[in-house]
Amino acid sequence: METLYLHADKDNIAKYVIFSGDPWRVETLSKLLDNAKHVAFSREFNTYTGTYKGMPVTVSSTGIGAPSAAIAMEEMYQCGMEIAVRMGTTMGLKDDMLGKLVIPTGAMREESTGTTYVPLSYPAVADIGLINCMNKSVVNNGRSYLNGITCTMDGFYSQMRQSRLSEKMQVDINETFDRLKKYNVLAADMESSCMLVLANLMGIKACIVTMTTVLENLKDMLRGDDRKKSEEDLCKIVLDGLRIYNKEAD
Amino acid sequence: METLYLHADKDNIAKYVIFSGDPWRVETLSKLLDNAKHVAFSREFNTYTGTYKGMPVTVSSTGIGAPSAAIAMEEMYQCGMEIAVRMGTTMGLKDDMLGKLVIPTGAMREESTGTTYVPLSYPAVADIGLINCMNKSVVNNGRSYLNGITCTMDGFYSQMRQSRLSEKMQVDINETFDRLKKYNVLAADMESSCMLVLANLMGIKACIVTMTTVLENLKDMLRGDDRKKSEEDLCKIVLDGLRIYNKEAD
Amino acid sequence: METLYLHADKDNIAKYVIFSGDPWRVETLSKLLDNAKHVAFSREFNTYTGTYKGMPVTVSSTGIGAPSAAIAMEEMYQCGMEIAVRMGTTMGLKDDMLGKLVIPTGAMREESTGTTYVPLSYPAVADIGLINCMNKSVVNNGRSYLNGITCTMDGFYSQMRQSRLSEKMQVDINETFDRLKKYNVLAADMESSCMLVLANLMGIKACIVTMTTVLENLKDMLRGDDRKKSEEDLCKIVLDGLRIYNKEAD
Amino acid sequence: METLYLHADKDNIAKYVIFSGDPWRVETLSKLLDNAKHVAFSREFNTYTGTYKGMPVTVSSTGIGAPSAAIAMEEMYQCGMEIAVRMGTTMGLKDDMLGKLVIPTGAMREESTGTTYVPLSYPAVADIGLINCMNKSVVNNGRSYLNGITCTMDGFYSQMRQSRLSEKMQVDINETFDRLKKYNVLAADMESSCMLVLANLMGIKACIVTMTTVLENLKDMLRGDDRKKSEEDLCKIVLDGLRIYNKEAD
Amino acid sequence: METLYLHADKDNIAKYVIFSGDPWRVETLSKLLDNAKHVAFSREFNTYTGTYKGMPVTVSSTGIGAPSAAIAMEEMYQCGMEIAVRMGTTMGLKDDMLGKLVIPTGAMREESTGTTYVPLSYPAVADIGLINCMNKSVVNNGRSYLNGITCTMDGFYSQMRQSRLSEKMQVDINETFDRLKKYNVLAADMESSCMLVLANLMGIKACIVTMTTVLENLKDMLRGDDRKKSEEDLCKIVLDGLRIYNKEAD
Amino acid sequence: METLYLHADKDNIAKYVIFSGDPWRVETLSKLLDNAKHVAFSREFNTYTGTYKGMPVTVSSTGIGAPSAAIAMEEMYQCGMEIAVRMGTTMGLKDDMLGKLVIPTGAMREESTGTTYVPLSYPAVADIGLINCMNKSVVNNGRSYLNGITCTMDGFYSQMRQSRLSEKMQVDINETFDRLKKYNVLAADMESSCMLVLANLMGIKACIVTMTTVLENLKDMLRGDDRKKSEEDLCKIVLDGLRIYNKEAD
Repeated sequence: METLYLHADKDNIAKYVIFSGDPWRVETLSKLLDNAKHVAFSREFNTYTGTYKGMPVTVSSTGIGAPSAAIAMEEMYQCGMEIAVRMGTTMGLKDDMLGKLVIPTGAMREESTGTTYVPLSYPAVADIGLINCMNKSVVNNGRSYLNGITCTMDGFYSQMRQSRLSEKMQVDINETFDRLKKYNVLAADMESSCMLVLANLMGIKACIVTMTTVLENLKDMLRGDDRKKSEEDLCKIVLDGLRIYNKEAD
Repeated sequence: METLYLHADKDNIAKYVIFSGDPWRVETLSKLLDNAKHVAFSREFNTYTGTYKGMPVTVSSTGIGAPSAAIAMEEMYQCGMEIAVRMGTTMGLKDDMLGKLVIPTGAMREESTGTTYVPLSYPAVADIGLINCMNKSVVNNGRSYLNGITCTMDGFYSQMRQSRLSEKMQVDINETFDRLKKYNVLAADMESSCMLVLANLMGIKACIVTMTTVLENLKDMLRGDDRKKSEEDLCKIVLDGLRIYNKEAD
Repeated sequence: METLYLHADKDNIAKYVIFSGDPWRVETLSKLLDNAKHVAFSREFNTYTGTYKGMPVTVSSTGIGAPSAAIAMEEMYQCGMEIAVRMGTTMGLKDDMLGKLVIPTGAMREESTGTTYVPLSYPAVADIGLINCMNKSVVNNGRSYLNGITCTMDGFYSQMRQSRLSEKMQVDINETFDRLKKYNVLAADMESSCMLVLANLMGIKACIVTMTTVLENLKDMLRGDDRKKSEEDLCKIVLDGLRIYNKEAD
Repeated sequence: METLYLHADKDNIAKYVIFSGDPWRVETLSKLLDNAKHVAFSREFNTYTGTYKGMPVTVSSTGIGAPSAAIAMEEMYQCGMEIAVRMGTTMGLKDDMLGKLVIPTGAMREESTGTTYVPLSYPAVADIGLINCMNKSVVNNGRSYLNGITCTMDGFYSQMRQSRLSEKMQVDINETFDRLKKYNVLAADMESSCMLVLANLMGIKACIVTMTTVLENLKDMLRGDDRKKSEEDLCKIVLDGLRIYNKEAD
Repeated sequence: METLYLHADKDNIAKYVIFSGDPWRVETLSKLLDNAKHVAFSREFNTYTGTYKGMPVTVSSTGIGAPSAAIAMEEMYQCGMEIAVRMGTTMGLKDDMLGKLVIPTGAMREESTGTTYVPLSYPAVADIGLINCMNKSVVNNGRSYLNGITCTMDGFYSQMRQSRLSEKMQVDINETFDRLKKYNVLAADMESSCMLVLANLMGIKACIVTMTTVLENLKDMLRGDDRKKSEEDLCKIVLDGLRIYNKEAD
Repeated sequence: METLYLHADKDNIAKYVIFSGDPWRVETLSKLLDNAKHVAFSREFNTYTGTYKGMPVTVSSTGIGAPSAAIAMEEMYQCGMEIAVRMGTTMGLKDDMLGKLVIPTGAMREESTGTTYVPLSYPAVADIGLINCMNKSVVNNGRSYLNGITCTMDGFYSQMRQSRLSEKMQVDINETFDRLKKYNVLAADMESSCMLVLANLMGIKACIVTMTTVLENLKDMLRGDDRKKSEEDLCKIVLDGLRIYNKEAD
């Protein structure tokens, strides 16, 4: 039976699923697959299934925020997903991070969708086997990586970037970053901790692979060809990492 | 300057903005406007600006969940939005609600993005002037309405509908509905309370107009022509309601 | 059977009930009724039932604070109350508010008695039909009104006014007002949010009509004849508003 | 300067203050004083000052609930109060308690006004010197006492007694009592913990002396002459207890 | 049957138990007993049972922190303990406290082990009868005492004393003390509130007797002979206090 | 300068520190070191420093519970610790776990000492490099391991094992285990999450290596030679694991 939002079913979803936040980036990602077949583009969920060097893979999207990311995880789990990798760009909290891969071991749960499943005391941790494979893939692709703790939040303009409203309310967005840096947090996003928590509850494996394309409060960012090349590398790193994992699991 | 996610700016956004949850329904809605110009379809945000019976209106989308709805509200506020109407379909908690319009006076804040702005004690209330106009528009269009309290939540499959994971974790989704019905709550969604809270903080006016197309836990729903007609009526009711408001404001 | 604290019963209570905070103001209010009969003055609850232009009305009191206001609401509901209006004076948070009526659409729940009934996520909202009638009555009586959000708190000398103890503990009461003004809050009191929440749970209609007689931290206030005239107008506005509502309901 | 609600000032308030919950019981209590002068009966606050066997004493009232009790404590502290005794009747949670005095060493803080002053971790404890004197006075007056832990709550009909609304919401009030009995709690009221907390913050001494006149959920109570005699004894015990304290302090 | 951690059983534990935080101080304390027999030294729990002036007494230890203190209390209760006295040194928050005994009437529950038993609203209060006896014993031994409120915390280096980590995280430890002094708190430790809460739930009697040997953030302390004499006096005061209690109970 | 509780200083502490919960097990562990020198046995902290196959190592203890574990971590960090390994026995939540090593990737933070440092949203995660080395060491030593999520709690007899008090309060300890098993939690202890959180804040590396010697609520356990051999293997696995790490770091 087709799922409610993603319009996917067991027959057209692979065990390995890569999630982008942006549904339009799925188009680019699908081009790296062989025999990619479109499943559906419904709401913010755009899904293709194909193969990469012979390994079946589904690529899909979560939209922005933990509530829609949880829906994507739930419906893919309904379809038999066993490995989930969130792939995306991230905002780095240290100055020398641009162009580096952040593959977190865990994430602060400052989003709240996860707490509708399990209390906040539960750690949002990635699978160690997947992290090891992704680390190798980064090095194979000539990049460097950071393993550590990231932070997932619900409020973009209330917590991560100044806005007309935050100025009206006299909120200093820098306090978020000052606080996170005291905690040795590497980067911030809006979906990861929820996805890691759900994977652990489901009993499946998950990890996060993100490319640092922007620094806190947009003070610096990758641009032009650098950015394009980084995003291409990110796609390849994730696919290659899954392939390493797939071979080891054999 | 163009906004970060919606790629909108002051020159191409009207003071009256209608938000759909689903970016693809914006396509349908835009067809009811005269001279609709496409602003952008970026991430889950699809935006057009045109006129309705001479009144300038922007139609856009929020995606699913409060985090992306907050981004849409923030960027439209950045562009000068003064009136925000969320339009959508909703899940009703009473058996005779199918096909009725729910225009809430307030919403339970069981989503958490709003709390990154203001404590939970703050009420998510709609603007009374807008509600009065929308109520009139419903009657003019031959439908009936309910004013009352709805509930906004972060977790769809953890709180509003059974799933493979909720079954594995032995969660009884019906407890959500039993609880809400004790509180006289009419309907549940994933964005409204956050949007109402932000509007009050911004000092702008907002309301929610939803068509009941499904009952709790999917036990009944509008189908086929009934559903199509209901969704068409919903679009017209919202646009006519804004026009009534616009005339009274003159 | 007589209720425990108010000593009221179904036979001597009308469907329309007006609550003053101060039991002694009930004496004044009762003089505007025809055939007012005293029910009881027990604890801080002083109750009369009579008619206003032929419409049966009960006038009673809540005392200060949400715990006693909840008792008054509960016992009147026990006696068949269907419409509850809290009437009182309030502290305004904007400088030009003296002498204006505040008829809130919702109230911040910073009192805690309401949370013994329903979680804080539940909005304290007034009935839109009653608000519309009270707004009309204000205009008919030559005054102006504000609809918006107010705040209800438990601590008068810990949150709303400096005291010997707040000075000893180095608490700056102005922080309360600075915070509330950032949230566009109009006024503060100690009973409203609890009464609105209970009315919604009971399935009855309620609203709040308050006259601004004092500004934050007592920096200005109505005095002498101005004050007297304002309080008289307040009584008349509430009674006339109920009459408008009563006619429309026919 | 006269205080805002109680209309008291330093010149007409004694260092020893006895608070009744019910303003009308202050009338009875004042008759036990010599030279009792009326200070004011404003809102739910009724105040007299006189002497008892030569010792100056003020008797006043708090109304129902912690918010008004905090106001009474604050304004009396403003007037120089050094010793505060809350006197009242209480609901006992053990079957053999009718007619016994409960003089708690501490109280559960299930009311929330106290948390506007200090976090919930702070204990609501009575002064040991005052308790010792009140214990002696009980014995001198031929009664028996219990020292232990009581509980103060904000919601009477949501937590302590069934009502039309609690039945509608399917709340089982007995759960409150079952829970409290597991914690060895002796009795429940609506003001004590807040008053004890404030006294400790003010650096003054306070205790609670209550007569058990009713058992949980009204299942048994003192009636007629038994009740009348008990309330008379209560007044005498408190006054005699203060006199013992006063002599020891000399 | 022997208990799990302390290796104690009903046959070798007295009804009166004195707990030291430090297991090694139990050695000293045991020397004041007649016929002291060693029960066990397991983990941080060191236990002897003997007699003091003919009264059977057990002396044991809790280790640092509420989790191990709760284990000690639970296992002694399993063995029939009826009176529990925590004896130790404490950090005083007022400058003239060095060498004085702090015998609290209650303690702030800023440790969290207690909340695994009962909500934070429950007061951590000592038994009034035991306090009275200990107060007498202090005076008999030529020292002076303070009754009042203390505070128990979980974090020593995060809340009570600067460390390499607190400096790295820019935490100002003085804020803890500034806050506690505003609340009239006398002293801080890491076990007391949990032990008092458990005793009240068990229905047994408990109190805390501590000698002030150090001032906040280590700014002054007893040294050399002064310290040695103070600790000897502390042991004697507690044993004598229990003896006074024992005689009165006869 | 010597630290306050452990009496350690920079000169006698190695960069690699192994912590046992039980101070007496440190004696056994120290026998596996060459040239072990005793630092101190103070309170529940027993410390030796020596070498293992030429690599300098300190072995110490935390006592039971997060408050004392935090003190041990803080003082060792003060002395220059760079790698922290907690070694111990654990209670397993699945029936086939006896004799297996649990090396968690993360731990539920149900203890509260960690929250005095950083909010509960922060994940308690182990260092991936250390986990990889410990996994290898387990296999090298002929055992099998589980990586996954464990849970750390403050209350032993309130949460993990029935007691006289839990029975009196009618607490069903099995609810803890039922809940944890729904969350795929492998094992429960009283120190781990706090130690992992502190290591991440300090910017040092940490992991947990525990041997499952007992099943939930003591329903089965390793005994006699099996237990002895398991504990010996545990010591060797940890030391060998550190050696693998040390070589890779070269």
